Amino acid sequence: MSDVESDVAEPGDPPLVALTRVRLDLAYDGTGFSGWASQPTRRTVQGELEAALATVLRLPSVALTVAGRTDAGVHASGQVAHLDVPDPVWARTGDTLVRRLAGVLPPDIRVNSVRRVPVAFDARFGALSRRYEYRITDAPAGVDPLSRAFVLGWPRRLDEAAMAAAAGQLTGLHDFAGFCKRRDGATTIRTLQTFTVTRDYDRLTCAVVADAFCHSMVRSLVGALLAVGEGRRPADWPASLLTLGRRADDVGVAPAHGLTLVEVRYPPDDELAARVETTRARRD
Amino acid sequence: MSDVESDVAEPGDPPLVALTRVRLDLAYDGTGFSGWASQPTRRTVQGELEAALATVLRLPSVALTVAGRTDAGVHASGQVAHLDVPDPVWARTGDTLVRRLAGVLPPDIRVNSVRRVPVAFDARFGALSRRYEYRITDAPAGVDPLSRAFVLGWPRRLDEAAMAAAAGQLTGLHDFAGFCKRRDGATTIRTLQTFTVTRDYDRLTCAVVADAFCHSMVRSLVGALLAVGEGRRPADWPASLLTLGRRADDVGVAPAHGLTLVEVRYPPDDELAARVETTRARRD
Repeated sequence: MSDVESDVAEPGDPPLVALTRVRLDLAYDGTGFSGWASQPTRRTVQGELEAALATVLRLPSVALTVAGRTDAGVHASGQVAHLDVPDPVWARTGDTLVRRLAGVLPPDIRVNSVRRVPVAFDARFGALSRRYEYRITDAPAGVDPLSRAFVLGWPRRLDEAAMAAAAGQLTGLHDFAGFCKRRDGATTIRTLQTFTVTRDYDRLTCAVVADAFCHSMVRSLVGALLAVGEGRRPADWPASLLTLGRRADDVGVAPAHGLTLVEVRYPPDDELAARVETTRARRD
Repeated sequence: MSDVESDVAEPGDPPLVALTRVRLDLAYDGTGFSGWASQPTRRTVQGELEAALATVLRLPSVALTVAGRTDAGVHASGQVAHLDVPDPVWARTGDTLVRRLAGVLPPDIRVNSVRRVPVAFDARFGALSRRYEYRITDAPAGVDPLSRAFVLGWPRRLDEAAMAAAAGQLTGLHDFAGFCKRRDGATTIRTLQTFTVTRDYDRLTCAVVADAFCHSMVRSLVGALLAVGEGRRPADWPASLLTLGRRADDVGVAPAHGLTLVEVRYPPDDELAARVETTRARRD
């Protein structure tokens, strides 16, 4: 298959062969990873997945674009990524790719589906929204042993009604600088579409949907809710931080392992290109 | 509190203080344990739990009786055990025992509830039935990363209708010698109350309820169903092994990590003593 490998385009070159854009839907246990993004000396989801794809596709390297660049320790059940594959490679491997990846990937990453998408599909800039869930138990016994990798144990009872009230005040278009780790030039203005807190016996789920999130935003939002749930802060305190315009010093960042990226939504195929343009314009 | 410790009864002595019988409902991730039963040089659930109880109760030692002596690697979400505690110790610690155990136990064991029960309650001989669930996925992608500690991945599609038909033929009172590792003198006659196979997308659950199980019986039953599910054996093959009267050589034992003890049922308090007598008589 070396004839195929020699066909791979170099960055900047016009492609020597037509490319197929491929969408991956994947899940991972973030415990053993230093987050999504590749780092030279650390184990990352991107690093493991790109290596597995290169092996299975018999390409010298592949480059993934992802919907949510999760931090170290954060999990995903509904992560989405895309890559471009030379047409002949896709024709040869597409049908068997899920099973072949299953045989090569470590057990803490699974690619659940692989499919051809229009070239206008962009896993990152085409996304309409990301949904994260943060899971907490306040059971006196602690965290269920078989769930302990993805549920935070909290040692005191939490008032989910106060937390839900606080969460509701944070929805809408706001500057979330109070809940973000500042990065040069990046906007902190986001639209929080939903933010709910629900209880099922001892298990609380904080579910948050937004067009995008700035760094550590979900864990800071949950950190603020935990202060409310314990009664250390009133329910309107988190919303009061929206006017700060800078990182709030007294908001804790909830531990990574309670957080899971559960869903990324995209528009219908005929609106993909327009969505990417809108997103890119907003980021600039 | 050394006055209390000196009150602890020695085996065979008449108790120096009245004893409270205490029921524990517990859960564990079996991955890191060499099963329930204490062994001198291995990490076991019983060993860890008895040590934690002795610490929290400030007793030199405690002795637990358990409903299901799970094998190495088998999990429990609804395990039940009992122990006897001197009345003054119970009076001092009962209300806070769950939280104090949560602070002392390793995260792969949780005691979810602790309560006083009649002295006729016997976690082992008083049980009416044990319910185990064996979880399998036949998803081409493999096992969900956050469930991989307790779900078996199966590399080929399974026919759950054939498996359910085979399971249905095994219910009732039978000699399960074909599915048991022989132990001297132990009966292999059991009543299988229910044995079902259900599918939820790619997840199959084999649920089995019986008065009791002999050694490796559930995993052998599931091993036989897997042969049916793959089409290697007809649906009436597992039931045909009931007439063997000895261990069937060609039944595989499914891996431990897919198996979880989920529920143990007991009669109402006024029937506890009668149930223990019935069970003991049958075992002899």
